[in-house]
Amino acid sequence: MTQPPDYSTIEKTAGRIKPYIHRTPVMTSKNLNAISGSKVYFKCENLQKAGAFKSRGACNAVFSLMEQDLKKGVCTHSSGNHAAALARAASLRNTKAHIVMPDNSSKVKIEAVKHYGGVITFCSPNLKSREETLKKVIEKTGALEIHPYNDYRIIAGQATAAKELIEDTERLDIIMAPVGGGGLLSGTALSTKHLSPATKVIAAEPAGADDAFRSFYEGRFIPSENPDTIADGLLTSLGSLTYPIITEYVDEIITVKEKSIITAMKLIWERMKIIVEPSSAVPFAAILENKENFRDKTVGIILSGGNVDLGKLLW
Amino acid sequence: MTQPPDYSTIEKTAGRIKPYIHRTPVMTSKNLNAISGSKVYFKCENLQKAGAFKSRGACNAVFSLMEQDLKKGVCTHSSGNHAAALARAASLRNTKAHIVMPDNSSKVKIEAVKHYGGVITFCSPNLKSREETLKKVIEKTGALEIHPYNDYRIIAGQATAAKELIEDTERLDIIMAPVGGGGLLSGTALSTKHLSPATKVIAAEPAGADDAFRSFYEGRFIPSENPDTIADGLLTSLGSLTYPIITEYVDEIITVKEKSIITAMKLIWERMKIIVEPSSAVPFAAILENKENFRDKTVGIILSGGNVDLGKLLW
Repeated sequence: MTQPPDYSTIEKTAGRIKPYIHRTPVMTSKNLNAISGSKVYFKCENLQKAGAFKSRGACNAVFSLMEQDLKKGVCTHSSGNHAAALARAASLRNTKAHIVMPDNSSKVKIEAVKHYGGVITFCSPNLKSREETLKKVIEKTGALEIHPYNDYRIIAGQATAAKELIEDTERLDIIMAPVGGGGLLSGTALSTKHLSPATKVIAAEPAGADDAFRSFYEGRFIPSENPDTIADGLLTSLGSLTYPIITEYVDEIITVKEKSIITAMKLIWERMKIIVEPSSAVPFAAILENKENFRDKTVGIILSGGNVDLGKLLW
Repeated sequence: MTQPPDYSTIEKTAGRIKPYIHRTPVMTSKNLNAISGSKVYFKCENLQKAGAFKSRGACNAVFSLMEQDLKKGVCTHSSGNHAAALARAASLRNTKAHIVMPDNSSKVKIEAVKHYGGVITFCSPNLKSREETLKKVIEKTGALEIHPYNDYRIIAGQATAAKELIEDTERLDIIMAPVGGGGLLSGTALSTKHLSPATKVIAAEPAGADDAFRSFYEGRFIPSENPDTIADGLLTSLGSLTYPIITEYVDEIITVKEKSIITAMKLIWERMKIIVEPSSAVPFAAILENKENFRDKTVGIILSGGNVDLGKLLW
C-alpha cells in the first residue's frame, strides 16, 4: 500500500481479519456517565485477542502477505502490545516472529510474546539500539519488518475498531482514541470521517509524552524526547505516515495529567469491572479534566488494551 | 411463593426482571482452556447491575410486591452484594431499603449501598447482632424483610443466570456455581435440571467455609461455624429452603484451598481482563485442583460478582 487506506480498503481489511479477531463488545456504565456528565460508549479492545487493538493491524499486515514472503518470518521492534499481536499473527500463519524488545520491557509483555512463540532479541531501551538490533536481526534472518504503526496495512487494521464502534452505537458527537505512534488514531479518523463525518475526532495524550499535541498545534513534526508517563503504550513519536493523516482528519488533541490517568483507570476497573492498561484510560481522563466541554455529549472511546502488570497497583 | 419455583415460575421471573438487569455476556478464553484442559464458558455476572447476580433475585422479590406492600420499604441484613442489589431494586420502585450491615463490612460494599440510596444500620459482625438489629429496624420502620437467599422469589431470580448461560452456549457437560447461602446454587440446579437434565451440577466451596459440603455429604444440615475464607460472599450457611433443593438436584460439591482461589482469581483477571471477586473464582479453582476430572469437558461457570476492594491485591 502506498496510499492512506480509503474506506473500501478498510472494509476489505475488516473482512480479511474477521476470522482472527474478536468483534469486541461496546460497554456503557450509568455510573461513569453520571460521574462524567456525558454518555460514553466504551469499545473494549482490552478484550481483543492478545489483549489489545494491535491484533487488528498485525493480523492485517501478516494476512496480506503471500506465502513466499512469509518463509523467513516477520520482525519488529516493540516493547509492547504490537510485539505480542505480531507473534500471534505469525503463529497463525505458521511462521516465525522475531521481536526486538528493550531489556526493561515489562515481564507481562515479555511473557505474552513468548506465549505466542515469538523469538525475542533484547536491546538497550533507546531508539538507536532498537533500530540497530532490528537491522542485525533482519540481516541474520531475512525476516520482513512489520512496523508497529508507520505502515498503511497497520493503519487500515486499526481503523476497523472505530468502524465497529460506529456501527454498534447511536450517532456519536465525539470519538476518542489515545495517541502514541498514531496508528490507532489515524485509523480511527479515517473510519470516522467516512462513516460519520459530523463526529468530531479527539485524541488524548499524556502531558508527559505530548509530541502529537505539539506537532499538531505547531504544524510541524516534533519527535518525542524523554517521554515520561505511566501510559507505556504511548511513549513513541508519530510516524511519517500517521502524522499527515492526523493533521488532516483529527479535530483536537487534549493532554492529560498522570493523576487523571490513574483516576480514570481506577474508575473503569471499579465501575465497569474490566481491566484496562493506563493508555486505555487516557481519553476518559481527558473527559474528566474537561467535563464542561463534554457535557451531555455522546462519546465513543476506544479502550486500547488490557495488558497490565497485576503484581502492583498504580493507586 | 410457598413451593420451590418450577420452570414456568423461572420463566415468568425472567420476564419480570428483564427491564432491570443485563443479559450478561458469556466469555471464553483459549488461554484458560489450555491451562485447565477443559472448555469453559464464563457467565459474567460480575458485569451485572450492581456488580453481582444478586440483582436478579433482589429485582424479582421487589418487583413481585404490590404497591401497598412497598410503602414502608424493604429491609435485609447483608454485608455484601445482596445489600447493594436490594437498595438498587428498592430505588427503582421509589421505596426505601433499610440495610443492616456488620460494622466490619468492606468500604466498597458500604459505598455501593449508599450509592443506591440504601439506609444503613450498623451492627456487630455476628448473626445474633444482625438478626436482633434487623428486628429492631423492622419494629421501627415496618419495612418488609427480603432475605438474601432463603426466599423462593430470590431463588427464582438467581435461577435466571443459569437459564441464560444454557441458552447461550452449546450443550454443557457440567455447570458450576459457588455456594454460600445456596440461593445461586439452588436456582442454578433448578434451571439446569429442567433445561439440560444430563448436565451435571457441581458446586464449589472454600474449604474454610465448607458447611454446604458437610451438610451435603453427611445428609443433615450443618451450619457454618467460624468460617474463614477470602471469598467473603460465601461465609453464610445454607438456608432451610436452599438446603433441600441442593440435596435433591446438585450432583457434587467440591471444596478448594484458599491458595487455589487466589490463583484462579488472578488468572481470570490476567487472561480475561475482567475483575471478579474471590467468590467468583471458586469454581474455576475447583477445576484447577481437579484437572483430571474435568479433562475435555464442556463446563459453564457462573462468575458471581466483581465487587472487590481495589485498594489492595490478594496476591
